[in-house]
Amino acid sequence: MTNAQITLVQLDNYGPWTVTPEPRREADLQTMQSRLFADLSQFFGTRDGYVFFTRFDNMIAVTNGADLEDHARVQESIRNRYPVTVSLGIGTGASPTDALVDATAHLQAAGSAQDAERREVLGGQPLADDERADDDVHIAHFDVNDATGKYTDELDAFSTFVRIEQGYASLMRVLHDEYGGLGFFVGGDNVVAIVPELDRAAYEAVIEHVRAEADMSLKVGVGSGHTATDAGLAAKHALERCREDGTIVEGDV
Amino acid sequence: MTNAQITLVQLDNYGPWTVTPEPRREADLQTMQSRLFADLSQFFGTRDGYVFFTRFDNMIAVTNGADLEDHARVQESIRNRYPVTVSLGIGTGASPTDALVDATAHLQAAGSAQDAERREVLGGQPLADDERADDDVHIAHFDVNDATGKYTDELDAFSTFVRIEQGYASLMRVLHDEYGGLGFFVGGDNVVAIVPELDRAAYEAVIEHVRAEADMSLKVGVGSGHTATDAGLAAKHALERCREDGTIVEGDV
Amino acid sequence: MTNAQITLVQLDNYGPWTVTPEPRREADLQTMQSRLFADLSQFFGTRDGYVFFTRFDNMIAVTNGADLEDHARVQESIRNRYPVTVSLGIGTGASPTDALVDATAHLQAAGSAQDAERREVLGGQPLADDERADDDVHIAHFDVNDATGKYTDELDAFSTFVRIEQGYASLMRVLHDEYGGLGFFVGGDNVVAIVPELDRAAYEAVIEHVRAEADMSLKVGVGSGHTATDAGLAAKHALERCREDGTIVEGDV
Amino acid sequence: MTNAQITLVQLDNYGPWTVTPEPRREADLQTMQSRLFADLSQFFGTRDGYVFFTRFDNMIAVTNGADLEDHARVQESIRNRYPVTVSLGIGTGASPTDALVDATAHLQAAGSAQDAERREVLGGQPLADDERADDDVHIAHFDVNDATGKYTDELDAFSTFVRIEQGYASLMRVLHDEYGGLGFFVGGDNVVAIVPELDRAAYEAVIEHVRAEADMSLKVGVGSGHTATDAGLAAKHALERCREDGTIVEGDV
Ligand SMILES: Nc1nc2c(ncn2[C@@H]2O[C@H](COP(=O)(O)OP(=O)(O)OP(=O)(O)O)[C@@H](O)[C@H]2O)c(=O)[nH]1
Ligand SMILES: Nc1nc2c(ncn2[C@@H]2O[C@H](COP(=O)(O)OP(=O)(O)OP(=O)(O)O)[C@@H](O)[C@H]2O)c(=O)[nH]1
Ligand SMILES: Nc1nc2c(ncn2[C@@H]2O[C@H](COP(=O)(O)OP(=O)(O)OP(=O)(O)O)[C@@H](O)[C@H]2O)c(=O)[nH]1
Ligand SMILES: Nc1nc2c(ncn2[C@@H]2O[C@H](COP(=O)(O)OP(=O)(O)OP(=O)(O)O)[C@@H](O)[C@H]2O)c(=O)[nH]1
Ligand SMILES: [Ca+2]
Ligand SMILES: [Ca+2]
Ligand SMILES: [Ca+2]
Ligand SMILES: [Ca+2]
Repeated sequence: MTNAQITLVQLDNYGPWTVTPEPRREADLQTMQSRLFADLSQFFGTRDGYVFFTRFDNMIAVTNGADLEDHARVQESIRNRYPVTVSLGIGTGASPTDALVDATAHLQAAGSAQDAERREVLGGQPLADDERADDDVHIAHFDVNDATGKYTDELDAFSTFVRIEQGYASLMRVLHDEYGGLGFFVGGDNVVAIVPELDRAAYEAVIEHVRAEADMSLKVGVGSGHTATDAGLAAKHALERCREDGTIVEGDV
Repeated sequence: MTNAQITLVQLDNYGPWTVTPEPRREADLQTMQSRLFADLSQFFGTRDGYVFFTRFDNMIAVTNGADLEDHARVQESIRNRYPVTVSLGIGTGASPTDALVDATAHLQAAGSAQDAERREVLGGQPLADDERADDDVHIAHFDVNDATGKYTDELDAFSTFVRIEQGYASLMRVLHDEYGGLGFFVGGDNVVAIVPELDRAAYEAVIEHVRAEADMSLKVGVGSGHTATDAGLAAKHALERCREDGTIVEGDV
Repeated sequence: MTNAQITLVQLDNYGPWTVTPEPRREADLQTMQSRLFADLSQFFGTRDGYVFFTRFDNMIAVTNGADLEDHARVQESIRNRYPVTVSLGIGTGASPTDALVDATAHLQAAGSAQDAERREVLGGQPLADDERADDDVHIAHFDVNDATGKYTDELDAFSTFVRIEQGYASLMRVLHDEYGGLGFFVGGDNVVAIVPELDRAAYEAVIEHVRAEADMSLKVGVGSGHTATDAGLAAKHALERCREDGTIVEGDV
Repeated sequence: MTNAQITLVQLDNYGPWTVTPEPRREADLQTMQSRLFADLSQFFGTRDGYVFFTRFDNMIAVTNGADLEDHARVQESIRNRYPVTVSLGIGTGASPTDALVDATAHLQAAGSAQDAERREVLGGQPLADDERADDDVHIAHFDVNDATGKYTDELDAFSTFVRIEQGYASLMRVLHDEYGGLGFFVGGDNVVAIVPELDRAAYEAVIEHVRAEADMSLKVGVGSGHTATDAGLAAKHALERCREDGTIVEGDV
């Protein structure tokens, strides 16, 4: 059974900060945002979690295994090293979608993302140790077939990007609306999705949906585990089996 | 007149590297990719350029003002500090789209993105000093109206993300297909586009297109300048005027 | 009683790398080295340890609380993100000096720091959970009295630096040779020392030694704890009491 | 003739910040300081300068080739990405020592390093283009002979560190007091010094001084150039010639 722990990371009152006292240079904002994301990825990533950059001012993380103290620690570390602070909402649930709704609610209940008084909220509760099991996290790692030969080496870089984005948009919608999964583009031609337990037919249907809607052919490796890292590495190994065997769904299905 | 200089940054043979000798942990890849992007953003950003993360393994930069030596220098700096290397293709043109086609062609001519022998290509030519003018770069900074009130504080974080992505996808397609512009999501609810010179009616049409297709209401500030930074800051100031005056198009139109 | 766990972090075969195929630019090396140190400081620091930059190619960390898996994880993370790899030697002992001798021996036994075949050694054993106690780590945080008024605002920046370095050299020698402590300059006018349990008279003697040998007047806050962070924060609070009360030794003595 | 341009980078009112509202964790400070230094090293380093970490709250840079606008740009970039700001003093002179005195004076004249009102000073003037020549910068890169065999592989890591520090302290003092040079430890067993034009006999005397005072045997490569990078790379190549030929002084002497 799935038991996802999702953390929503939200920069506090960030919009106003970007234009006070006047608009800040975009390059500095880009550098700052991506370094902040990298730090979160390093922090949770070495605690067996996954962080997705999402909108950069709102990042979504799979944090099974990280407790309240870990969350408070990263909040403090960012306060000590950046000009901005972060609020954290933690949600749990059988479906990743529900867990994120829960996580979001903890922040929204505390105030607006642009409330100058709302700072460093730490809301929600991580899974207790005795609620955790070896297959709490299910990850599906999707990858475009021969993206290099069909797109990168053939089209101009923006057209490739548009093609990949379209496939990605189609994929993330179907996963979310039909299956309760959360898919994130992680660069290149890859989408990592945190999903409930799904069977082979479901993955085949998802892949067929993206082929029909966005004319893009995908393969997927699926893994489950105690943490995002366990599940994610299993998914990556399954994806390699797709490559070796020419299959489109491999792994824990 | 527009005179865009676009650089395509492509990680060399990156796909194979991510799975050799076996799949590398995604969190490490995310951390590495975003730090590499941050470094490029810092490098070109403090030389008055803009870098967009795009697919992370292929990044697109507006580099008016950066010469061949600058490009070679950043290539060397990355080689000295990362486990991967980058190839750089430079293109120029009256339309940003054409400039990027040109930039891409220089890399594709040198070999595949996954050719183990193709490393650290530096192709194409920057604008000569006497070809450069004060309005070479046109930037349009698009922003969603009241994203906080309508989405961030109302929907769960993924649903907000999906909404923003859909508006963004619609916007980047129309800019590219109809106007020769390149639009990039830069986080939050913002899209920065490098565009040819366009008039007010064009921007109104673009905004109306996104409203009709993706049900999202945008405003835009437009700026022009010698470099991306000049144009981009002018665009941001124009966007502030939209906020103050309740208008939807301001700036150099 | 002290029970220090010290980790020696050594870049593998780094000297030859810096000049192959020809000498690399020093600025790139400086950037790379300090980012690598920052990552280690973030990694162990958020696991309640302290890392000192020392020589940058050889860094010394207090790692009570980090187990073998943590050490292996950071080794992998660096391999995945840097052009260099690290070897790690772990030592333990009642005196920090002994623990470091132990840590060093694990690496030296495996081969030379410039042996091209010796890569990513992970030697030695962390403390078992049942060997750990609440006062395992003792930290003394030394600070120069009125460094701003006496040096920074008075002398040129290099002369200030020379003065601070001289005081620091005197302090680190006496701590090491007489007391089995390891003192590290951490920037500004501060030295953080990992020490055995020492009494007030010892600290007064150390401070007097530095006054006599290097004509520099110090104060010190001393803390003990389960981890470096616990001990270090206690030491910092004790140092604040020195500031408030005009005393020169405060804390766990 | 030497014509050094030296920039003093000073964190504004940093001491009080580190303990407000209460002492901040040392690991966060270490991470923040070293990332800030890395950014400066990347910024000036890719503009052909060198930055030395010195005390981290006061850093010294050789900035020949960087103008006022560059200095203002890095100041802004740091303000946009860090919780602290920096003041910059620029000095020039035939001797590096004098240039630094000049640089320091510009900051001291503007107020104390711990004056809460003194923020983001930008004082002093860079060299005008017509004052600059091809041999403005002289760099001497000193290196310990067989540091690996004699120290790293033989002594414990702290004892090696103490030995290197002692040699380094002796070297930096004699360079400063006798020759008007500024020497900085850059990690490993290396000291990079920015020096006036000195002859072979002077370098032999310096090396002999360190041998006699600190029992450490050094070699040195000397380079000159338009910028720190030019001079520094020439010095590194000269140092390689020392290695190949078994000599102790090579290069522009
Ligand atoms: N973030 C991330 N990106 C990856 C990973 N593997 C590949 N990529 C990216 O995906 C791009 C394409 O690589 P591949 O998927 O290996 O290449 P392909 O041409 O699509 O070939 P096949 O997938 O084998 O059909 C690379 O440039 C990387 O950017 C991964 O594990 N994580
Ligand atoms: N990268 C980037 N992001 C920005 C910028 N300005 C705002 N944002 C992001 O956009 C989000 C929303 O901020 P705003 O656009 O100020 O807020 P809003 O609720 O949409 O309000 P209005 O735009 O004023 O109607 C913020 O959290 C930031 O992430 C900017 O200049 N650059
Ligand atoms: N790394 C680190 N540096 C610090 C810390 N506290 C102060 N510093 C540094 O020390 C410098 C001097 O600060 P203070 O020690 O507060 O100032 P002071 O003039 O010596 O005054 P007193 O120590 O109060 O007599 C600052 O610029 C910082 O660089 C700290 O906790 N950690
Ligand atoms: N920052 C920096 N460090 C260096 C450089 N070259 C070497 N090092 C450091 O110096 C250490 C010792 O390397 P070497 O000087 O090559 O080795 P050695 O054993 O002293 O041998 P010889 O100098 O050849 O006698 C390495 O681990 C590096 O940390 C350099 O160019 N810059
Ligand atoms: Ca693929
Ligand atoms: Ca908005
Ligand atoms: Ca002090
Ligand atoms: Ca050496």
